[in-house]
Amino acid sequence: MRQVLIAGIGSTPFGRHSEIAIQSLAIRAADAAIRESGIDRKQVGALYLGNFVSGPLTGQEVLAGLVADGLGLGQIPCTKVEGACASGGIAFRHAYLAVASGMCDAALAVGVEKMTHADTATTTAALNCAMDNRSDGISGLTFPGLFGLAWQIHAERYGTSRDQVSAVVSKNKANGLLNPLAQMGANVGADQILQSPLICDPLRLYDCCPTSDGAAALLLVAADKRAELASSPVAVMASAQTRGSARIAGHPDLCTFDATVMAAQAAYAQAGISAKDVDFVELHDCFSIAEIIDTEDLGIVPRGHGGGYALEGRTRVGGDIPVNPSGGLLSKGHPVGATGLGQIYESVLQLRGQHPNQVRDAAIGLTHNLGGTGVACTVNILKRIDA
Amino acid sequence: MRQVLIAGIGSTPFGRHSEIAIQSLAIRAADAAIRESGIDRKQVGALYLGNFVSGPLTGQEVLAGLVADGLGLGQIPCTKVEGACASGGIAFRHAYLAVASGMCDAALAVGVEKMTHADTATTTAALNCAMDNRSDGISGLTFPGLFGLAWQIHAERYGTSRDQVSAVVSKNKANGLLNPLAQMGANVGADQILQSPLICDPLRLYDCCPTSDGAAALLLVAADKRAELASSPVAVMASAQTRGSARIAGHPDLCTFDATVMAAQAAYAQAGISAKDVDFVELHDCFSIAEIIDTEDLGIVPRGHGGGYALEGRTRVGGDIPVNPSGGLLSKGHPVGATGLGQIYESVLQLRGQHPNQVRDAAIGLTHNLGGTGVACTVNILKRIDA
Repeated sequence: MRQVLIAGIGSTPFGRHSEIAIQSLAIRAADAAIRESGIDRKQVGALYLGNFVSGPLTGQEVLAGLVADGLGLGQIPCTKVEGACASGGIAFRHAYLAVASGMCDAALAVGVEKMTHADTATTTAALNCAMDNRSDGISGLTFPGLFGLAWQIHAERYGTSRDQVSAVVSKNKANGLLNPLAQMGANVGADQILQSPLICDPLRLYDCCPTSDGAAALLLVAADKRAELASSPVAVMASAQTRGSARIAGHPDLCTFDATVMAAQAAYAQAGISAKDVDFVELHDCFSIAEIIDTEDLGIVPRGHGGGYALEGRTRVGGDIPVNPSGGLLSKGHPVGATGLGQIYESVLQLRGQHPNQVRDAAIGLTHNLGGTGVACTVNILKRIDA
Repeated sequence: MRQVLIAGIGSTPFGRHSEIAIQSLAIRAADAAIRESGIDRKQVGALYLGNFVSGPLTGQEVLAGLVADGLGLGQIPCTKVEGACASGGIAFRHAYLAVASGMCDAALAVGVEKMTHADTATTTAALNCAMDNRSDGISGLTFPGLFGLAWQIHAERYGTSRDQVSAVVSKNKANGLLNPLAQMGANVGADQILQSPLICDPLRLYDCCPTSDGAAALLLVAADKRAELASSPVAVMASAQTRGSARIAGHPDLCTFDATVMAAQAAYAQAGISAKDVDFVELHDCFSIAEIIDTEDLGIVPRGHGGGYALEGRTRVGGDIPVNPSGGLLSKGHPVGATGLGQIYESVLQLRGQHPNQVRDAAIGLTHNLGGTGVACTVNILKRIDA
């Protein structure tokens, strides 16, 4: 496998984009990534597009081909990939594999979702496409329901408190205030979070990521193209993808997602590093409690200490291991198919030293994207290239 | 790239499967493919699932993970791929690449669709997700409309007649009678076709493939596993994927799909053969006129002679170049995500000498899967392995 560089990045703000069609949103991000790289678009040999529910919510599929058309790419293989909320991470991994395997010298990963135009019932039904609807779906469970359960078990086993979980919310909302792409950064304290409406006990409104529109894109190239690049590249050390059970009953323990644990182990092995070598993490905080579970599953925080680390400020920028300096899903937003690529976009800015919420001396970053009830997961490890 | 073998095949009948959930249909086909191969399912290192509209029509996504779960596979990367009606072919190509690149030694390609439970308006809206809805969709055009236009142009330019097109229908319907997996084989003559209801001038009911449920699966392995196989393998000589315009206005000529022409050229080059070396073809006859255009685009019939070849019986089993001995989409059915893999399933049977409508001395077969308005295309070339 060849070494792969991220040569260009692009992203729309996450939030509401009522005025623009889903493919145009993706084209906007992808065009920026190509232009920034300095690579001639005719060199792009494959396109992977991460998207989850464009069919039910916009009535538009074949997005990979539509986006390539709009970008003026060649008659290259264009593929939409889907793995629920991990669709973006899966798109990145396939663009990475296309270059690493020598299939082509440049590949584009694009992620997009458009959700804010739909009413809540329609959106909830679409998001529930990520469940096994014959088991969990039929029970009436939704994703807030799943993570509410996970929180209750985590609290009982490890004593995780409302204040600890609120510290995650406060941190990510504050981080979002610094990120011009974020949908809803805010200064919110524990009291304000506690007073927000109950969604699914113990989850309150501020514990849940918003519904979002948005797109993000990365252009990946073989390392031997480095001299041609117009922008400062970042190296891909590892890209891992796993699956876990699609049914909640298939998870013997809701305080952990085995797909995350295995993807992290695979990625650390591929990169030849351990969790302690990572300087910052962008992870899948679809709900506040998810960040606590994810930090433990990724091995960056000891098992059962995710809440404690958050409350002690150890996951803030400036702390032991900054988590979601972008604001994360809670604050930056969660346009599903774009999320995994948005995390990598943020990480590239960190590793270039250009992030609006910069982690000092960031040299190695990790991104984590989780789909459904842990049915699909990707973990990527990225590295600064020192001149 | 390593040599890749098709080690096991599985398929449900195509038709109506009201009693079974979409994931169960896929699991049935995939389990058969694994069992037939003799490969331990723990060796399967990747799963690609082709599907087009499970979101809008069944409310179920994450099918790749669900199917792996049901099959008892490991915690491997599982990815749904979508490229409209070419989704199955795209799944095959990615399973092929996973093995050819050395990423894993065995990979599963599964395709599935469930459509017959939905009413016609819902199904038409779902299928129109394959169009660029801001240009063609908004005009009110549907896929019968597109192929009706293509026929009118083909007829005007090359003199293609109703009788010539009817010869395609009669052949494929008759071939389907011999195929136990086919949804609607029949003995139909030119008069009967002419008397069937007009769908979109000049297309009549018999010119259109049916709506179908079904699944098909292939297990691919590295060539060095040959000694472990329980069934007779077939070699993959080439697997190509291209894109064309998503908008009808992007096609300067509706008598040809450039995605097909380029995929065929790429596949012939990869296999080191030319069109005349192919012994039979399974191609994308979503409408009768499509078979005529496809035979010309693939180079197996001279440009403008597709209709003549059909009427003269040269594309029948026993003719110069048998086309769709399985019955094709017109007669076997078109469960969208499964179609491309079903074509390969049929071709493997031919190359093993086990097809119910056997092409004598079949040594090289070609499959062709086309999505949307030619927005995505795959062409595969398969070869008998002589003992």
